[in-house]
Amino acid sequence: MSLPLVQQDDSLPPDAMLPQESVRQRVSDIFIYQMPFNRELGLELREFEADHAILVFDRQERLVGNALQKILHGGVIAAGLAWVGSALLRHHSISVQEFHQRLARMGTIDLRVDYLRPGRGEHFTLTSTLLRGGNKIAVARAYLHNEAQVHIATATATYIVG
Amino acid sequence: MSLPLVQQDDSLPPDAMLPQESVRQRVSDIFIYQMPFNRELGLELREFEADHAILVFDRQERLVGNALQKILHGGVIAAGLAWVGSALLRHHSISVQEFHQRLARMGTIDLRVDYLRPGRGEHFTLTSTLLRGGNKIAVARAYLHNEAQVHIATATATYIVG
Amino acid sequence: MSLPLVQQDDSLPPDAMLPQESVRQRVSDIFIYQMPFNRELGLELREFEADHAILVFDRQERLVGNALQKILHGGVIAAGLAWVGSALLRHHSISVQEFHQRLARMGTIDLRVDYLRPGRGEHFTLTSTLLRGGNKIAVARAYLHNEAQVHIATATATYIVG
Amino acid sequence: MSLPLVQQDDSLPPDAMLPQESVRQRVSDIFIYQMPFNRELGLELREFEADHAILVFDRQERLVGNALQKILHGGVIAAGLAWVGSALLRHHSISVQEFHQRLARMGTIDLRVDYLRPGRGEHFTLTSTLLRGGNKIAVARAYLHNEAQVHIATATATYIVG
Repeated sequence: MSLPLVQQDDSLPPDAMLPQESVRQRVSDIFIYQMPFNRELGLELREFEADHAILVFDRQERLVGNALQKILHGGVIAAGLAWVGSALLRHHSISVQEFHQRLARMGTIDLRVDYLRPGRGEHFTLTSTLLRGGNKIAVARAYLHNEAQVHIATATATYIVG
Repeated sequence: MSLPLVQQDDSLPPDAMLPQESVRQRVSDIFIYQMPFNRELGLELREFEADHAILVFDRQERLVGNALQKILHGGVIAAGLAWVGSALLRHHSISVQEFHQRLARMGTIDLRVDYLRPGRGEHFTLTSTLLRGGNKIAVARAYLHNEAQVHIATATATYIVG
Repeated sequence: MSLPLVQQDDSLPPDAMLPQESVRQRVSDIFIYQMPFNRELGLELREFEADHAILVFDRQERLVGNALQKILHGGVIAAGLAWVGSALLRHHSISVQEFHQRLARMGTIDLRVDYLRPGRGEHFTLTSTLLRGGNKIAVARAYLHNEAQVHIATATATYIVG
Repeated sequence: MSLPLVQQDDSLPPDAMLPQESVRQRVSDIFIYQMPFNRELGLELREFEADHAILVFDRQERLVGNALQKILHGGVIAAGLAWVGSALLRHHSISVQEFHQRLARMGTIDLRVDYLRPGRGEHFTLTSTLLRGGNKIAVARAYLHNEAQVHIATATATYIVG
């Protein structure tokens, strides 16, 4: 799966180094607000550091896989876990040009989700850490918890980064 | 992830055997039309036989992960592949009571998605076959193709069924 | 994969509760010393507690997948990670009879290994923790480190336990 | 996991194209006969074509995980499935130099094994096909059957190839 190559209306020259806050803003902007499916999920980027990323979202009726029990849909869980892992990979001090190139080259190779407990709750947190960084391959691990710190699901994803 | 336990307004007695067409109708009804997230995805059950299930869906703007390239979101792919595998498990000649019990007990244990090629296309087909049936554990394999028969992604999922 | 049902020459009555040290001894005995392949790997059970298990092994010529670089074989890594996860599941205060029944019913459903860094080193440690316990399904996560605490590989395995 | 870089006593110049039979011979030689662990498993390369590879092995006492039931060890299954996938990637008409470079760069990123049925039998066949070829990433799927064509296990593995 190729990740988005979004045209930014950049006033910065291609070799200008992006400050960290700007990288964070672009990642939030591109991957959440410009990607229709993530917007549907209502994901919000809470923390975005070199070694971890945290996204939050609230339970909504359309994210539910079990209408009676109000349990999150397994596909929603998979999507959120996939996202938070990939978000982490964008955290680098890079030039405008490198940022765009990196986005164009990046892709998810595979994703594995373990559903540990029913997806009950109102507010959910997706946390991701890097297991393996690299100039070709990266591996991220992600966790889904609810507001009571129940560990609902975990995922490991492999990405091509170069 | 527990799957939905939906109350059916059944006029049939609990031990009545459901005809195959009725099982198919209930599965379509419950898992697609009553599950908000699957409704969002626009999934439609095309074939539903003992040894395979086929779901189709069209590309919609909100399913896209890459707005410029119009490539399907990886989470949408994961969700669709998860669904078509679990649909297959409901194909049995069973009584009304068993049908409801089976739904209540069924759950996804884990899911692995391999993203093979970019999710380009207009019309997509999700196909699933059973690798392992059983009274405790089932394993299904699913495939995503576009209208040109390009193999976009594949998944293997493990389910608890008893 | 069914796990071993080994006949113990038990002088204890079937309903006698096994003390923890006895469970540990039996697990070591059965899974390591009586299982030819684990004996080949030279695994040694170092710690065996309710919440984690640790196995150690040394590099031997026959465990190597790359003769020049002396890197561990990926299959050896997979085997060790699979083993340490399953070992953890046997840690319970149970009767002699339950111990044998549990062994007979237990099986590995699936195993996923991520190879993070080359398997270089002389002394290796396999650590396992439970992600999900349960009376039907258990999920364990395992880690392989070398003597320099380099994280070489990680695995997640799902087991049927009842 | 880096795969073996074995020094061949080559009388051929580095840019000589290797005939297919020679590639096959070198792959057999390097990966089976020179890799101690594969030699332990007793793997034999039966077919080695552009679109599939087949390895066979016999049950031996040391490959057994369950001494009483004579069932294959899950780690042996994982190792064999990993191997047959990676073997497939070496099938190319390439020069001597490229062959050595390719071996040096190749590595397994991840491996997933589904254990479908108990590993009973006397003679086993490992078959592999490519799901995704590519100049950076390859994905192979492998199957383990016994002499009665019972499908015992399946695996999907991702490799870095460039």
